[in-house]
Amino acid sequence: MDSYNIFPVGVIRVKKGSSSIEVFDEFGDALSGLEKFSHIIIIAWFHENDTEENRHILKVHPRGDKRNPLTGVFATRSPVRPNLIALFTSRILSIKGNSIGIENIRAFDGTPVIDIKPYIPNEDSIPEVELAEWL
Amino acid sequence: MDSYNIFPVGVIRVKKGSSSIEVFDEFGDALSGLEKFSHIIIIAWFHENDTEENRHILKVHPRGDKRNPLTGVFATRSPVRPNLIALFTSRILSIKGNSIGIENIRAFDGTPVIDIKPYIPNEDSIPEVELAEWL
Repeated sequence: MDSYNIFPVGVIRVKKGSSSIEVFDEFGDALSGLEKFSHIIIIAWFHENDTEENRHILKVHPRGDKRNPLTGVFATRSPVRPNLIALFTSRILSIKGNSIGIENIRAFDGTPVIDIKPYIPNEDSIPEVELAEWL
Repeated sequence: MDSYNIFPVGVIRVKKGSSSIEVFDEFGDALSGLEKFSHIIIIAWFHENDTEENRHILKVHPRGDKRNPLTGVFATRSPVRPNLIALFTSRILSIKGNSIGIENIRAFDGTPVIDIKPYIPNEDSIPEVELAEWL
């Protein structure tokens, strides 16, 4: 089977009351122009779940709550899934050098960041949706 | 440097006027419950750009238009970036077996899919944003 190689371009830092993305120096130029946006999409890697076993889990009880019906991982935001990709949207609070201050996100300190994209409503915003009842 | 391995879980099929995601049989169980959502986020791999050279490009003219200012790739949705991750949001039109019919997206036929997530407004929708003027 084909496979692809990805590598961290930075790391999520979570401290009491504040979060940031520390982009590694070698990728600093890729941030140029990001100050013109108010929000970003952060694509990260659930590195703490990166085991063969976790990557073979295809169904979970959403939010780890057994009262929620066993559900395919592609229908959840579970941190176990075949490719351990995490997606967060956050407001940019500041950009200083290679450090992006952001509103708090539900990520662990030290989570590797693999991509950053500007949030663009035409691409990313859906005004009306339907959701599973466990939400 | 750390690196991680990702692999396709399906493929985007684009035909005249219609698109679908064909999830590989071995991941079919991961779709269970997706029928309760109206929209998905599709995470794919810009496989046609997967060269060492492209993965070292850190600045581009957005939309390939030289009138747009040279901008860091993390401030654009450019298909060249250190990790070639593509993000699309689309409406689910149908789910038949392992095939998800979706509204057309701007992807090439044959693009590998690496993850699928339900679109959840609390996580993914931002009502008011600021954008670069090239948008």
